[in-house]
Order: sequence, then structure tokens, then C-alpha cells
Amino acid sequence: MDKIKVSVAGGSGYAGGELIRLLLFHPNVEINQITSESYYGKLVSKAHPNLRGCSNLKFSGLSELESCDVLFLCLPHASSMNSIDKFKSLAVKIIDLSGDFRLQDKDEFEKWYKMPHANPEMLKEFVYGIPELHRGKMKDAKYISSAGCNATTTILGLYPLFKNNLVDAERTVVEVKVGSSEGGKKSSFATHHPERSGSLRSYKPTAHRHVAEMIQELSFGKDINIHFSATTTDMVRGVLATCHVFLKEELDEKDIWKLYRQAYGNEPYVRIVKEREGNYRYPEPKLLAGTNYCDIGFERDLFSNRLVVISAIDNLMKGAAGQALQAFNIMHDIEETTGLDFPGLHPI
Amino acid sequence: MDKIKVSVAGGSGYAGGELIRLLLFHPNVEINQITSESYYGKLVSKAHPNLRGCSNLKFSGLSELESCDVLFLCLPHASSMNSIDKFKSLAVKIIDLSGDFRLQDKDEFEKWYKMPHANPEMLKEFVYGIPELHRGKMKDAKYISSAGCNATTTILGLYPLFKNNLVDAERTVVEVKVGSSEGGKKSSFATHHPERSGSLRSYKPTAHRHVAEMIQELSFGKDINIHFSATTTDMVRGVLATCHVFLKEELDEKDIWKLYRQAYGNEPYVRIVKEREGNYRYPEPKLLAGTNYCDIGFERDLFSNRLVVISAIDNLMKGAAGQALQAFNIMHDIEETTGLDFPGLHPI
Amino acid sequence: MDKIKVSVAGGSGYAGGELIRLLLFHPNVEINQITSESYYGKLVSKAHPNLRGCSNLKFSGLSELESCDVLFLCLPHASSMNSIDKFKSLAVKIIDLSGDFRLQDKDEFEKWYKMPHANPEMLKEFVYGIPELHRGKMKDAKYISSAGCNATTTILGLYPLFKNNLVDAERTVVEVKVGSSEGGKKSSFATHHPERSGSLRSYKPTAHRHVAEMIQELSFGKDINIHFSATTTDMVRGVLATCHVFLKEELDEKDIWKLYRQAYGNEPYVRIVKEREGNYRYPEPKLLAGTNYCDIGFERDLFSNRLVVISAIDNLMKGAAGQALQAFNIMHDIEETTGLDFPGLHPI
Amino acid sequence: MDKIKVSVAGGSGYAGGELIRLLLFHPNVEINQITSESYYGKLVSKAHPNLRGCSNLKFSGLSELESCDVLFLCLPHASSMNSIDKFKSLAVKIIDLSGDFRLQDKDEFEKWYKMPHANPEMLKEFVYGIPELHRGKMKDAKYISSAGCNATTTILGLYPLFKNNLVDAERTVVEVKVGSSEGGKKSSFATHHPERSGSLRSYKPTAHRHVAEMIQELSFGKDINIHFSATTTDMVRGVLATCHVFLKEELDEKDIWKLYRQAYGNEPYVRIVKEREGNYRYPEPKLLAGTNYCDIGFERDLFSNRLVVISAIDNLMKGAAGQALQAFNIMHDIEETTGLDFPGLHPI
Repeated sequence: MDKIKVSVAGGSGYAGGELIRLLLFHPNVEINQITSESYYGKLVSKAHPNLRGCSNLKFSGLSELESCDVLFLCLPHASSMNSIDKFKSLAVKIIDLSGDFRLQDKDEFEKWYKMPHANPEMLKEFVYGIPELHRGKMKDAKYISSAGCNATTTILGLYPLFKNNLVDAERTVVEVKVGSSEGGKKSSFATHHPERSGSLRSYKPTAHRHVAEMIQELSFGKDINIHFSATTTDMVRGVLATCHVFLKEELDEKDIWKLYRQAYGNEPYVRIVKEREGNYRYPEPKLLAGTNYCDIGFERDLFSNRLVVISAIDNLMKGAAGQALQAFNIMHDIEETTGLDFPGLHPI
Repeated sequence: MDKIKVSVAGGSGYAGGELIRLLLFHPNVEINQITSESYYGKLVSKAHPNLRGCSNLKFSGLSELESCDVLFLCLPHASSMNSIDKFKSLAVKIIDLSGDFRLQDKDEFEKWYKMPHANPEMLKEFVYGIPELHRGKMKDAKYISSAGCNATTTILGLYPLFKNNLVDAERTVVEVKVGSSEGGKKSSFATHHPERSGSLRSYKPTAHRHVAEMIQELSFGKDINIHFSATTTDMVRGVLATCHVFLKEELDEKDIWKLYRQAYGNEPYVRIVKEREGNYRYPEPKLLAGTNYCDIGFERDLFSNRLVVISAIDNLMKGAAGQALQAFNIMHDIEETTGLDFPGLHPI
Repeated sequence: MDKIKVSVAGGSGYAGGELIRLLLFHPNVEINQITSESYYGKLVSKAHPNLRGCSNLKFSGLSELESCDVLFLCLPHASSMNSIDKFKSLAVKIIDLSGDFRLQDKDEFEKWYKMPHANPEMLKEFVYGIPELHRGKMKDAKYISSAGCNATTTILGLYPLFKNNLVDAERTVVEVKVGSSEGGKKSSFATHHPERSGSLRSYKPTAHRHVAEMIQELSFGKDINIHFSATTTDMVRGVLATCHVFLKEELDEKDIWKLYRQAYGNEPYVRIVKEREGNYRYPEPKLLAGTNYCDIGFERDLFSNRLVVISAIDNLMKGAAGQALQAFNIMHDIEETTGLDFPGLHPI
Repeated sequence: MDKIKVSVAGGSGYAGGELIRLLLFHPNVEINQITSESYYGKLVSKAHPNLRGCSNLKFSGLSELESCDVLFLCLPHASSMNSIDKFKSLAVKIIDLSGDFRLQDKDEFEKWYKMPHANPEMLKEFVYGIPELHRGKMKDAKYISSAGCNATTTILGLYPLFKNNLVDAERTVVEVKVGSSEGGKKSSFATHHPERSGSLRSYKPTAHRHVAEMIQELSFGKDINIHFSATTTDMVRGVLATCHVFLKEELDEKDIWKLYRQAYGNEPYVRIVKEREGNYRYPEPKLLAGTNYCDIGFERDLFSNRLVVISAIDNLMKGAAGQALQAFNIMHDIEETTGLDFPGLHPI
């Protein structure tokens, strides 16, 4: 098989760095170009010091992008939609890691992003990038929009319940605990170590943009609501979603087990984690650093009809670069786990 | 004023250590004895190394306890209720920091603690130890049961709403993020640093005992439910409660402000924290280490009738030793803030 | 006693914040003004959120400074020396927390700071601000230059040895581990949480400015050298110095004990920490957050003539604001521990 | 090539876990057995939760060990030497990760380990396990003793200098900063999270056993000394060694560069890290989690003849399992980097 020639637009950020790491070790990939304006002309390892000695690639400028087989877009929000025509002229297949093409409905985009969409007609061209939900469509897709990290964690956690119409659609409350890398590579007083270290910051108690993705993927034609809050912790990587849903019918833990096994039993990157003993009875983001797994667990509240679903990912992997590469493998009919087999470290 | 002679039963744990620290610097207090079986005969600073050079007190044995004016009980769960008669014979006033006398109803105790209560007739003799709710009764109380740390955080956060019957009583979801000191001083593989460091452990997704206290204090004669989960973080100290309530009538943020100001405007240890900018727009436990404050903030969800209430404390202070000393001051008609004026450190 | 009227120039930084915290609770002090250009007109608690509810003071501008009894300078390096004449006209007594007046010798200043000194004739007017070394001179001093944090830790650790001429003057190696607050309040990509969290950065392997202070205070007329390196850790506060000295004569641990007890036995803020068991056998910065202590311990290397001396402080307290207030108390013949009695928290 | 049949004795600890992770993904390896008494009969992923879904292997008992091609020993200290005859009867090749066979000299072993050696005649049969020093001997070795983690970091950092006789042999001071995984998997009050979190514990100011290895490997027939101290930090993984050596002749940074490039220019797992700007100018353990690299940097002290050499590794990888696998590859004439190509994560 010939190597697939890929380029990465906007490769100096954290998600871009993870994507480059994965691509460098992918047996079917040849990296053509990686762009960055701020690191222009420098070695890729200047932006990503873990890659020292792994690559001699240097950053190109965005305007120097050449045609390639697949173009990954890791640009700041709004950049992809503004330049999508140019990118389409350079590559037949595009995987966009930004939020620009995640919502299929222009009005929803404008409601949550509070700006007009620059290319609304393209919205329906993109497949929403969670393989566990859209693997079939991905196989023939030209354009994939990688899902948001908090959205991925929540959607994968709740998908079997909503799909089977088992929960009170209005009452779901989701609380994610996230790491500081979710905020990106740009420093500010908010991310200054003495301020941010050890903090539990209620950075988005309401109105988080990723809710729009959750509603899009979980509504199945009904009116639903996800009451979502996000709190940052001292982690660098990782998302833990604690999802409180209220069951419409009596289901015990065995029923829930069955439901999740049915949904995810053959999935290479979803593990059901629910043990009776040990330190890791439920999903734990610290086990997932560098992996593409979404771990999902649950506990039935015996005092009410509540079910607590707990899901965890690495926001830069299953929440960004890893999931994008999983989609890439699917698009190219490559074994889905290629380049994604790192199992994570313990202890860390 | 003569000094009040106090003793501490079970003073080698974390809450006991904080209590001793506070008592040592309290102008109206003389410490008579501090007991510990495991540190028997040793300097208090052997258990509490921060007190090196601050005290020459040594630990006594529990069986050596002499009579005193006030006895603080920092014993393991079930010890207080088993020996309460003995303790009553030694001191006219008792402040118990365990969970033994927090619930007024024997059946509730047995439901949540899964054991019979050894002295159920004493349950109603104890005043539940949150001053902001029971200051009046505390003034004449002989026995006070200090409130649980997660219960204190949640109850103070939600009290004005439930008292005024403003929320859907069945729908409240509360998620607390807690530190490792909440688990006490006993080490285990679960608290082993390589396992526990950096973890986000879903240690109690449902069925946490403190829920019983919340329901007791927030029900006001109605049937209510608090859907509660607790997740441990890498913090050592601190509780952050994110409380999702659903309003029964339309209230905007100004209304909520007014409500909380009315409830807590004169409280020395409740601060309403809600700012438009800066790193600490909402309550943040890291600012509260060593202080007796409960900080409370909120955000109205503009997409639904949800109100997110955020409250934070130091679990060893407002959640244990600090609140106990505040009660002590009230019982003795001492200025309520005496010995509790440490404002916390920043940055930390 | 009338309250002493003090002002703080440059009060929005971390050391300034700690100083304000201490001054607010000092019984003999009245704060007149606190200046900040960036927070001009705002409440002091906007810069120091731990002080919410503790003060209604607002920041003034530097140009608005009025005369006062004592002026504390917490300005950026070079500001104090450039404006010292103006500050002298406003206050009879000045305590400068910057590095501008720490070195008595102009040439040394220029060698280490790589700039000319703007007011070299003032250098000898300042007393170097470590009370344990210069208490006598401080009593009558008008101007005090607070010592550097790493310098304080190292000097207090080594002073008894160098004073008594017991170590090979050329061979001493000192390694300090420091927290991120030492770098100040200004954010940058270097302090961005995902980059800085969990790091062990060799930020100053050689040529740290504080070495000049160490040599000044420890040389006692001889040629000495301190081979110094500084590594940052994930702490926010704290300095731990591990000092490797080589003894010129045979001294066992008892001799060393005696030496340190002699030097510091009556010092309120130096503790000798050396225990046979327990988690805190040696000095530990995490126990010292918020305190003015310098804890010192040591271990004799039985395989050579090395003695390892370990000392720890809170860089913002004994290394800045606390030590400045201790000097203030001495200057005014106030009990030296006034306003400095916080014993620290455990666990934290 | 037929797969090499390996077993791991003592595979439930942290180093064992990393070794299993590596072996599971090594293309030339088939794992025969993994033993653990405490996890006997359980899935390997019960001890190593990161391996969930990666393997169905279960732990065997040590007494059930069958013959295999290569036996890895990850047993507690003293176990290997006591049972070495039995292990030799089971496998032709043995790689021991304990300290039992690191020292070639029985007297040195007894001096540092304070116990008699159970099989002193075997000491010279083992090759000391740092490939960069002993690659030649490894190719034909039957028995390899994996080097200590602190020893590896220090020896690799200093080897070019001592080999070329460039430093004052008596004056070297080395300070390592280590993570909590170095202490192993056994919990105690010393590793209890509230006690250990955020600590900078001077756990071994003098007399660390690894010094014996350093002297053995760095002496080259001379009398040398390494004045070594070890401090634990809040990291879980990683070692950072700051080595202060004193040059016997004038060498500038260019000379040092040349020296290190000469020594390590072709080494796949030694990188020289020394940059003029950026956050990672010197080696940084947090970049190395999961990798087999030893990063080495240095800075010349312009005020003296000191050279500061900084080296970093992941203690569980280059300091244990990774280095053991590198030796395994060399022993079997497999490409040395096989199974070891993970480049590490950033940010983490």
C-alpha cells in the first residue's frame, strides 16, 4: 500500500502536537507539511519537545500548503470555516478538529457560537466525528469534523440510554471535570501556575458550547436537554464526566450492563469499567493519558430512579487527535487501531 | 474572664489537629487534655508537625480523661454514641465532630449508617452544628453535633432556596469535589501516593451518608431528594459543591443575589462570591485552606430553569474544627470570630 | 500605643499581598495607602482574593503616596533605587523588599545584576534584613533591605557553620527546590499551567543573583564560594535548600546539634527539625505555608566529611513579607512575633 | 523468527507492570507466565489497570514457574539472590531488575546492603545493565542485572567526564529529585496522600545504596566519591539528577558538547538537551513518562570551575523496565529500539 500523504494545518498547538506524534508512528502515513505561523521555519520539536530526535520536519507557513491526500485542520475556531474552499482545493479529504463544522444546523451554530457561519452550506457535508456513532458514514466520507472533547465524553457515556429512550429527556445533569490542556496552548493570567495550580475553577457552570453537540447527537428526534457544567482541576490532561440521568423504567445494574455491552461490546476504544474493588473501580482519566480509550462505568442509585454514568477520556486523544486518527483509519479502510495501540501508563 | 477548660478526645487525627491548632491560639481557652491511644505519651507535635514549638502538651489516654468544662469528641464513628454517658459525666458541654449525633431520627441513622444507634434517646439532645441555621439553639445548647463537611457545603449553598420553597424538591443534583484529607489519617493502598495522586476517583457516586443530613436540614416538612455524588481530586483540603437546582418560578440573578444577601448578609463566615472577571469569579477551595469561610456563588442557566449554586469550604475547618469552634464561641457568648480570623493564603 | 501609619508601594503582587494580609491583622498598625498601577482604584481584594471581606481598602497610585511612618517597598527590581530619594522624603523608615539594596558593595551589585546602581551611596544605609544575623543593627535602623528568599534559606542554614569557620570555604554546594510563586505574578508561556505543572525545571543551574547575598553574609572576611543551583518544582510556595558542606574538622551530629542550638536556641522563628521517625524528619516547606519559620535539619555523611544541611521556608513569608514584618517589629520595639504567630496547616 | 518465550517473576509491582506492558507489544516476544502471590489467579489487569482489554493473562504462582527462554526477575530485594539457582535451572537467560546482582564486589554489597550476599560467586556472572556502557558484553551475556534508577541517571550523566578523567574525583555532589513510584507499590503512612502530596521530603540525604553502583561504574580504577542526596517530590514518575562536578582543566561549553556527542552521538536513548530558549531548555522528567530516554544537559558556571550536569529519566522505564528490555533486545540481536519507540507525551 502506498503511503497516504497528509498535511497538518496549524500544528503547533497541543492537539496538533498529539496528532503529529501519532502520524509520525503510523505505518501508512507520510507527513508532507505541518504549518505554524508562530514557529515558522523551526523544527517541529521546538513546539513539541517530546518529539526531539523523532523527526526533522520543520514548520511551513499556511500559505505554503501544497496539495495532499488528507488535510488535518487544527486551526483556531472560525479559521476552518473561513478558508474551507481553499482547503478543499488542496485535499480531497479533510478532517477538521475545530468546532466549525460540528453542528449540522446553522441556527444552532449561531446560537451557541454567537457568530454567523461563514460556510453554512458545508455543514451537512461533514460527518460528525465519533466513530462509535457514525462509522458507517465515515467509510465514504470526504469531510469529518472531529467531536469536542467534553461532547465526546458525554455522548459516549449517554448514547445507549438516549438511543433506547430510557431516560427522562429533560432532567439529565452532566458535570465534567477537565484538565488545563483543554484551554489550549495560549498562556494568560488565568493559566499562570500559582493561580491555576490546585484550583477547582467553575469555568463554565452553564452555556458551554459542547452542549449543542450533545443535543444534536443524543436527541433522536425528541426534545432533550443536557444540564451541563464544567469545572477545571489541577490535571493537565483528561476529562471525567459524571452524568446523572433519571430512568423512565425500572432497570437494575444487570440491565444496564447488558445495554452497554450491546452498544459497545465490539468497540475497540470503549471499555466498560465497573469493578467491585480496587482503586480504579470506575473510569479514571489518569489511566488514559496518551490512549484513545473512552472508559465508561455506572452506578444505580438505590434511593431513587437515578443512574450515575461516569465516562473518561484523554481530551487530546479520544477528545481530539486520537479520535481524528481513528476516523482517518476508517476512511481509508485501514485496521481501525493502527497507530493507536498505546495502552497508557500506570502509575503516572 | 476565666479561661474555659477544654479537652479533646481523639486528638491525633486531621480534624483533631486543626482543632488543637485553633484552641492553642484561642484567648479564652485552656487545653486540659488531648487523648490519643496511638500517640500516647508523645508530644502533640509528633502527630501534628505544624505545631512544633507551639505547645509542650502530650497525649493522654482516653481512660485518663478528667472532668473539664467542654469536651470535644474527635473519635472514630460509633465511639461517641457508645461512650456518651461517660463523656456526659466528665463535661457539661460536649461538641462531637463525628457523625453519631447528626441525625435526629434513629431510623434515618440506621438507614444510612447501617447499624443500630447505641443511644438513640440522646439524638434529640444534640443541636445540629451549622451556626447559620441553628445559632439561636446553640446559645443554650449543652450538646452540639458538628455537621459533616460535604453536608455543610451543600446545606449552606442551598438553604436559602429550600427555605423559601423556590426549587423543585425532587430534582436537585449535587456533585462535590473533595480532597484526600476527607478520608482521614489512616493510610491504605487506596491512598498510596502513586495511586491517588492526580486521580479523579468516583468514590461515592450514590448513597453518601451526608445526604441524610442534607435532607434533614433542607426539607422543611416536605419530601425532598438530593441526588448526590462525590468525586475525589488531587487536593488535600477542600470541598467544592456544584449544585444544580431547578427553579419553580422565574428568578433572575438579581433576585438570587437578594435572597442570598438576605440569608447571609450578616454572617461572618459566609461570603457571596460572584464576580464578572478575574481568576476567582466563583468559590474556590484553594483560597479557603485554614479559614472558616463558606464561599457561595451561582449562575443562572439561560437555556432552562436551572440555577447552578457553587459553594466551597475547607473540610477540616468550616467542615469540622472551625465550625466546631464557631459553635463553641456561640455557646459561651464569646465574639463568634474569636480564634477564627485567619483569612487564608494566596497564592497557595 | 498609637498605631503606626504604614503604606505599601507596589501592593498588588504576591509578596505585597502577603504583607497586606499581615498588616491588616497587626494590632499596632494602621494601613494608610497601598499602591498599584494595574489595579488602581480597585478594592485590594481584587488583587488578593483571600482578603475578600477583610478590608475595604482600595489601591492608590504611586504618585499619590502621602507621608507615613513606615513605607514598605514591594516594587519591581530597579524601581526602589531609582526613586529612593522620593521615598525618603515621605517616610522616616523604609523596608524595601526588592533586591536593590541588599548588597553593600556597588561592584558586587553591578556584577550580579548587570546594571549600574542608581544610588550606590545609599547601599550602606540599609541593614540586610535577616533578624537572626542583624537584630542589633535593626533596632536603630531607618532602612532595611529584606533578604532574598533563596538567600534567606541558605544563609540561615549555613550561618553557624561559616561563622565558626568549620567548613571548607570553597566546596559548598547548595541546591534549592522552589515553588512557582517565586517567579512573581506576571504570567508567561513559561508559567502556563500545562507547561509548568509537574515540571522540575532547572531554571538557574548557575549564576543566580542571590549567591551574592550568601557570599556577603557568610564570608566573614574570607574568600568563600557557594556553588548554587535552583530547580523549580510543582509547589506554589516554599523553598527547600539542600546544602552540602565539607567539614574541616571531625564533628559528629551531637556537635552539630550543639552548634545550631547555640546559634538559634532563642530564636522565635528558627526551629531545628531532625527526628528519628515520622514523615517529617527533616524540614518540609509544605508545613510552612503562611508561617514565618525557617526550619533547619542536617545529616552527617558517614562515608565522608560531608554534612548535609537542609533548610526550608515559605518564600513569601520568611523569604519576603514575614521577615519584613519581623524586622518592622524589631525596629519599633514591638514583641517580635506580633502578627506572625500563624503556625501553619497540616495536612495541606 | 520464532517468538522468544519469556516469563516475569514478580509481575504485580510497578516495574513489573511496565515490563508487561512493553512485552505485550513486543513483536518478537511471547509471554509464558507472570507470577504474583498477592494477585494469584487474577487477571494481569487487576494489578495493572492500564492493561484492561489488552491481555487475558492471569498471574501464576512463583512455585509454578515453567522453563522459558528468558526470565525477568522483578522480585523484592534479596529474593533473586536467594533463589538464583532455581531460576538458572528454568531459563538460560535471566534479567534481574532487583539490586541483588548489581555490585560485582561482595564486600561492597555487604557494606551498602548491610546483609551477607547469598550467592556471591554469581556476582561476576552478571553484566551491569546499562547498554551505553556495556553493550558489547551484553551481546553474549546470559545474566544481566538491571541498573538502579538513580544510578542510571547519574552514571549516564557523568560517564563521559569520569571516563576521560576530567573532574576532581572527590568533589562531585549529586542531588536527585525523584517521584513516589520509586518507593514501590507498598502503601504506608509515609505514602499516604495527604502526607506525601506536595511534599519535598529529604528521604535519603546520605548513604543511598545506589551510590555503590555509581562508584563501581565511574571509578575507572581510581578512588572517587559521589556525594549523593535524594529528595522526593510530588511527581509519581521521573528522576532528575543535578550533578555538580569540578573540572580539573579549563573546558568551555563547546568542549563539553563535543565530549557528550562523542560519547552518545549514536545512542538511540540518550539525547543531549540544551537549548537557548523555551520551557524545556534542560532535561525534564515530565517529558519522559513512558519513554526509554535519558536526556542530558549541562551548564558551565562562569564564576568557578563547576560544571552542572543535568540528567533525567523515567525511573520505571530507562530506570527499570525499559532498560531491561533494551538489554533483552541487545542480547537477542534484535533491533535495539524494538518495543521502545514511544516518544512520550506533551503536555502531561
